Amino acid sequence: MARREKYKFPKPTIERLSYYFRALEDLSKRGIDTVSSDALGTKLNIKSSQIRRDLSYFGDFGKRGMGYDVKFLLKELRYILGLDREWPTIVIGAGNFGTAMAHYSGFKKRGFDVKAMFDIDKDKVGSKENKVPTLHMNDLDKFIKENKIEIAMICVPETAAQEVTDQLIKNGVNGILNFAPIALKHDKEIRCLSVDLTTKLEAIAYYMSYSKDKLWKIFS
Amino acid sequence: MARREKYKFPKPTIERLSYYFRALEDLSKRGIDTVSSDALGTKLNIKSSQIRRDLSYFGDFGKRGMGYDVKFLLKELRYILGLDREWPTIVIGAGNFGTAMAHYSGFKKRGFDVKAMFDIDKDKVGSKENKVPTLHMNDLDKFIKENKIEIAMICVPETAAQEVTDQLIKNGVNGILNFAPIALKHDKEIRCLSVDLTTKLEAIAYYMSYSKDKLWKIFS
Repeated sequence: MARREKYKFPKPTIERLSYYFRALEDLSKRGIDTVSSDALGTKLNIKSSQIRRDLSYFGDFGKRGMGYDVKFLLKELRYILGLDREWPTIVIGAGNFGTAMAHYSGFKKRGFDVKAMFDIDKDKVGSKENKVPTLHMNDLDKFIKENKIEIAMICVPETAAQEVTDQLIKNGVNGILNFAPIALKHDKEIRCLSVDLTTKLEAIAYYMSYSKDKLWKIFS
Repeated sequence: MARREKYKFPKPTIERLSYYFRALEDLSKRGIDTVSSDALGTKLNIKSSQIRRDLSYFGDFGKRGMGYDVKFLLKELRYILGLDREWPTIVIGAGNFGTAMAHYSGFKKRGFDVKAMFDIDKDKVGSKENKVPTLHMNDLDKFIKENKIEIAMICVPETAAQEVTDQLIKNGVNGILNFAPIALKHDKEIRCLSVDLTTKLEAIAYYMSYSKDKLWKIFS
């Protein structure tokens, strides 16, 4: 039972593991063998107690007074995050944003190999930049099966996003990163994450508007 | 003192307020006057108890048994989020991603008015698409002052991001949305949010790798 409880870690932990992985990779490249949670925290602007707590959900990785073994922790995190393999990926929507996602080298470096972009615009179909071809949506079903696609990034307008999602799921794509500003409907077993970049700007606007005057007005 | 404690709400609350705002706007457009937290929750895939808790940090917006007044709550959220005004914004880096950010109509709709893109690549400078000009980085300082820029989106490679940030802050830009995969160093009063899209894919990969077998291996 004690072990079972360990599964219950907060969702942001997973995203922070990605940041730890990135920082450790950098340390490893620079030939550094061990790192304390304090040093890692300073590097990442994250409290060291948070780092220790996040890692403790997955195991006992630090040696008392010695810090973490960089190479060992890297290997463990790679396994935990599922980065010890390739993830065949596609991008739906070949606009500016979709194109940026398809060509971003940072994804490939982590194993997210974008095999193709899809669009309904015939003017976009047929081009092949950075080795990523743009295909017509009519060829989506066949392509997914033949290339065993597991993850799709949805970069289409809001109005098309649900239809695209349904088609992806019907074809067995279980991992979806959605950039359309809409709450997609899907079954529980689908791993779907929605990122609405406008909300990030809104958060900044909120914090910039944050003043005692304003709070007084809100709370009075 | 009781009032002061109310300030202490979790950061994700602010982002969820954006989602509530979006949903309420949609309801308002469709002529719907009141909405229950249950209905709002179903629309957004968020628990109604979470919605009630989030809103309670800012005031008592619901009438018992009546739900929320859509127009009133919209007005309040617009004010709380700082969306009752325009935010002069710029984009640094005119690559695919920066261009997508500069041309995204969703930002303007919320008051984030992208005035220009900046780049060091002379081939990119001078173009003017969708009314957003691309200027040279040499003209950044002057442009910020003349246009009272408050928010910048950083869409440059990792290696240039800190230098760009320093230059922005020196010129009085206090709101920064950073897309480079690096933890930026800045003073406390700067409102800086970093979004690393690779971590989103990694979270999906993690959840797709999630199986009892794998957990057993991790936890044993």
